[in-house]
Amino acid sequence: MKGSVEALPIGLELRGPVLTSLSQVVREQVPGPMEQRLAEIRDFLEGDLDSVNQDLDALEMAQTPLHDSARHLIGLGGKRIRPMCVALAARIGTGFGPGARDLAVAAELVHSATLLHDDVVDSGDKRRGAPTARVLYGNAASIFAGDWLLVEALMRVRRTHLPDVLDKALGVLAEMLEAEALQLARRGRADVSMSDYMRVVNGKTASLFRWALFAGGRAGGLDDDACKTLERFGEAMGVAFQVVDDVLDVDGDPETVGKELFADLKDGKVTYPLMVALEHDRDLQRALKERLAGGTNTLDGDLAARAHRAIKASGGVAKARALAEDLIGNALRDLSALPDKPATRALVSVAHAIANRRK
Amino acid sequence: MKGSVEALPIGLELRGPVLTSLSQVVREQVPGPMEQRLAEIRDFLEGDLDSVNQDLDALEMAQTPLHDSARHLIGLGGKRIRPMCVALAARIGTGFGPGARDLAVAAELVHSATLLHDDVVDSGDKRRGAPTARVLYGNAASIFAGDWLLVEALMRVRRTHLPDVLDKALGVLAEMLEAEALQLARRGRADVSMSDYMRVVNGKTASLFRWALFAGGRAGGLDDDACKTLERFGEAMGVAFQVVDDVLDVDGDPETVGKELFADLKDGKVTYPLMVALEHDRDLQRALKERLAGGTNTLDGDLAARAHRAIKASGGVAKARALAEDLIGNALRDLSALPDKPATRALVSVAHAIANRRK
Repeated sequence: MKGSVEALPIGLELRGPVLTSLSQVVREQVPGPMEQRLAEIRDFLEGDLDSVNQDLDALEMAQTPLHDSARHLIGLGGKRIRPMCVALAARIGTGFGPGARDLAVAAELVHSATLLHDDVVDSGDKRRGAPTARVLYGNAASIFAGDWLLVEALMRVRRTHLPDVLDKALGVLAEMLEAEALQLARRGRADVSMSDYMRVVNGKTASLFRWALFAGGRAGGLDDDACKTLERFGEAMGVAFQVVDDVLDVDGDPETVGKELFADLKDGKVTYPLMVALEHDRDLQRALKERLAGGTNTLDGDLAARAHRAIKASGGVAKARALAEDLIGNALRDLSALPDKPATRALVSVAHAIANRRK
Repeated sequence: MKGSVEALPIGLELRGPVLTSLSQVVREQVPGPMEQRLAEIRDFLEGDLDSVNQDLDALEMAQTPLHDSARHLIGLGGKRIRPMCVALAARIGTGFGPGARDLAVAAELVHSATLLHDDVVDSGDKRRGAPTARVLYGNAASIFAGDWLLVEALMRVRRTHLPDVLDKALGVLAEMLEAEALQLARRGRADVSMSDYMRVVNGKTASLFRWALFAGGRAGGLDDDACKTLERFGEAMGVAFQVVDDVLDVDGDPETVGKELFADLKDGKVTYPLMVALEHDRDLQRALKERLAGGTNTLDGDLAARAHRAIKASGGVAKARALAEDLIGNALRDLSALPDKPATRALVSVAHAIANRRK
């Protein structure tokens, strides 16, 4: 694939003569495996993400279960997609300086803090292919480690002294927690609406993407209008990211997928395939509602398989991709207001990669 | 007692002709039941604490388990001693305005957030005579509720735009979490030193008292020197508060007290009677160490009773009170640099009440 028109290495695309204008990149929507696209963007960002990883590694880490938990989670890696958003936005402006670096690290720290707390709340055993921190070091350590990473993040945001980034960071944290609150309030309920879904996705995922792009824009010295444009783009990207994320797991074993759907309902988790399947099959919704009311902990094979069929039949995957593409497409129209720079085009590439990813 | 020289109502003491100078209050150290002294200070503070309680009640609270948890804990009351510290410090300056009010509310919110997380970590069932929030609404709700209160606190600190209060608030949170980290690292160890003890007490309790007095001073427009004096005083008060708090429970049933000592060791909790008893009786320390290594969950009656005897024999209660008085006494010397106002004298009264409290 590499080198073909469909998956042109981003370096070429951004710097070479083939695709030179932003509008052209926007129109052409180069699809390709997300990991490859992100690798190309990482290449484009040169040392930016290395410096973020350096700072993450250099967190003051004593030998305590709290610090072990934080180190374990951060050491597992992950896509570093939020720092990437900060870096790209900063490069649309004056570049990736010390302020942008602090904000990029902060975005990853906030994300890491929420993962640590989520794994405790959901009794999660696996994360990024490894045992979760709470399995290795206990729930207490993960709770306090999450708190600590949050404080470390806010300290970094604070010391940039850039206008609004701290107030907005606190606002994002409040939104994230409102989404968690909604999720807790929905535990054991079998009705899921698009409005619930969007509230949770906006709070839990999109708000931090929105902030990452705003913060990067500020660090790059962009004006208020440009930062607002970046915020809207970040929010669309965040929703698209989550919508696609939600449907990537429904290709597994039917019984497992059905049981996971049931576990999500029990936990109050509003996911895209769940919403689409239950809208598609009201009888299934009633059956699951009865099962939830009965207080059962797991789903029998028959009902699990039926839930899986409903997910497949409802066309959730195609609908999710279409929604993600729509969101990105709408957001792209705004982007013409931004300077046409390699970083702007790379941002568009990230957005498309998110909507088209397969894993 | 009321009206006698020993427990003169603070209103008289502060405003009347009997005790007019700060140095005199400092020398005379009027003892009395803490609750009564605090009630008098509340009276002196007039509406300040009412306005704090109004703000706490007016937190945006939806009907979700997260908000139910926060509402439950805050509704249980408590002494509101940290907001009181903010209010007194502000009144040593220009008075209790909107900034001081936000900071006073923030101090209580941070304290409440730590209680919510602590109860999850310690599996605590009772708090202020009622079931804990986690018992009523679950661990997940308490974890997110703690996160939420922390964010609400920081938003209030932020909007005061007073110099240094936000940076110091973040610093205090980091200190609190370092103390939690130390405690987790010490789980199951039978050796307790004064230096461990002081590190934990400074981090978990004294740092927030220190901040409350600094923040109040800033809100009251006091200069850097005065704020520094208040910080030192707050730290001494906080340590005194915790030292006395630690020894107030050792008068119970011997077996229960012994078992609690063991539970503390298992949890890595460094408390004053524990430290003194183990320093006093090295054989006991060895016996407990063996028991801990054996992985047992509770202490048999004999060893529990022996631990209780060691606590009594070591004179921990008297030592704790002497230490608290020393701390307050040393800190008081500094206070002559502050304006001699009713609020300054009330602050001294609070400090003495803390060192002398019986429950």
